[in-house]
Amino acid sequence: MTLTLVSQSKHFGGLLAKYSHASAVNQCTMTFNIFLPKAAAEHQTKVPVLYCLGGLTATEDNFAQKAGAASRAAQYGLALVFPDTSPRGVDFAEAGASDDIGYSAGFYLNATQAPWDKNWKMYDYISKELPQVLSANLPIGGHGALTIFLKNQTAYKSVSAFAPILHMSKSNWGRFALPKYLGDDQSTWKEYDSVELFKLHHAQKTLRTDFNVLIDQGTGDKFLKDNLHTSDLIEFVEKEGLEKQFTIRYQDGYDHGYFFIATFANDHVDHHAKALGLTLSH
Amino acid sequence: MTLTLVSQSKHFGGLLAKYSHASAVNQCTMTFNIFLPKAAAEHQTKVPVLYCLGGLTATEDNFAQKAGAASRAAQYGLALVFPDTSPRGVDFAEAGASDDIGYSAGFYLNATQAPWDKNWKMYDYISKELPQVLSANLPIGGHGALTIFLKNQTAYKSVSAFAPILHMSKSNWGRFALPKYLGDDQSTWKEYDSVELFKLHHAQKTLRTDFNVLIDQGTGDKFLKDNLHTSDLIEFVEKEGLEKQFTIRYQDGYDHGYFFIATFANDHVDHHAKALGLTLSH
Repeated sequence: MTLTLVSQSKHFGGLLAKYSHASAVNQCTMTFNIFLPKAAAEHQTKVPVLYCLGGLTATEDNFAQKAGAASRAAQYGLALVFPDTSPRGVDFAEAGASDDIGYSAGFYLNATQAPWDKNWKMYDYISKELPQVLSANLPIGGHGALTIFLKNQTAYKSVSAFAPILHMSKSNWGRFALPKYLGDDQSTWKEYDSVELFKLHHAQKTLRTDFNVLIDQGTGDKFLKDNLHTSDLIEFVEKEGLEKQFTIRYQDGYDHGYFFIATFANDHVDHHAKALGLTLSH
Repeated sequence: MTLTLVSQSKHFGGLLAKYSHASAVNQCTMTFNIFLPKAAAEHQTKVPVLYCLGGLTATEDNFAQKAGAASRAAQYGLALVFPDTSPRGVDFAEAGASDDIGYSAGFYLNATQAPWDKNWKMYDYISKELPQVLSANLPIGGHGALTIFLKNQTAYKSVSAFAPILHMSKSNWGRFALPKYLGDDQSTWKEYDSVELFKLHHAQKTLRTDFNVLIDQGTGDKFLKDNLHTSDLIEFVEKEGLEKQFTIRYQDGYDHGYFFIATFANDHVDHHAKALGLTLSH
């Protein structure tokens, strides 16, 4: 699997590069941005990598351009990968007809229903194909969103999220998109529902206890009530006494946008750097 | 002159707000973003302000969304204003026909030639009207780009620039746009040419000596040779022995884009904060 360099710019001593590549699982051309710190960009030194997954309406550019996270990542010698959020350029009209399904709305799931099942394999893309493409082509040591982390707990060292859809099956977005992507059998929805996955793994005693999940949620976020359901996770955490494993922060007055993300992006980089044993030495 | 609030988001403890207003000098609706640190946003405390002027192809959003400067400004208690770079929505087709003249290419000049002379008064807008609009409506104390600074040396405390067009009359961009905006008499071009203005004020002994101009220029900037002419300013500075007043930094390998700006934005905030006597106390 070869990478095509689309553009590159020096950034915080390292390199912000955009690549495209043929995706076998999504059956289309996928594009991502990557920040390589100086050691990797100049000396091909292998460095750890943090996956920064965008949300609804985002592309590979939003977090890369607007979060300001490369500043701190450069100091840690940490690479940042910014994948696109869905397949692109497919040949059926529904793909581009709505903000809530199709382009920029991949929800990191593997669709099982036509016409989505041919290309919408974002779960496999993020958890399997992209890591392989990266490690085969770029100097990163290999191995962070909530559902992917939960189902691959040994592949990632840490996880955090900004304003995540925590209870997908209950959210308006999920109730619109999931029947189309996965069908009407709601048992299939739980595979991509963080609260349900946390509950399942905890009941099965397969939830790792040596990690801390950092979640920042703005209280001014207009999607909080009907789509994000942060309180459902808090209720689970409190009921099960899992406070040591979760740091769920309500940030007063912040909304759902990049001005919120940028404010706390470096906190998240710090969180992952700590889990990776990195220190501010660069 | 009243402001219309377009949007606002909490950002680094303060507020990133977009406003529009009727512009008397540009005879159209103008839009700007402003970052207000907490003291100003929450307590209406008057704070100093740094004007962040965008370049070709930019709007009021580029620097606000991509530079990451609000992080440091919040710590200094400094407001940041991000004006648009040209009039918008005017009623003649040339305004939107080129990247190098018209929309997003105001060059901060007062046009004297039709059809531009009705709306393209960006010099007056930035140096006079916008400061008045801001001080009348927002809690800023009032007090930075090179040509505007040079012609208003008592109104500003400091100035800095990223990859500026230093010798406008010689640049390809200037030689294309200036005849259209100002006519063929090249003596009128010098009013908006930084190197020529530095030379003029130095010869007239009207160049302030109590400031330091910070300029960052990437060596990988494709516009360096034919449009920016950094070496012309350096030649002037060295010939006249003005090294104390200028800090001109070539940044190895950086290009003309926002990944370059973001890398050094906090250096510039530090530069202005020092000139304003601000300390990192917030």
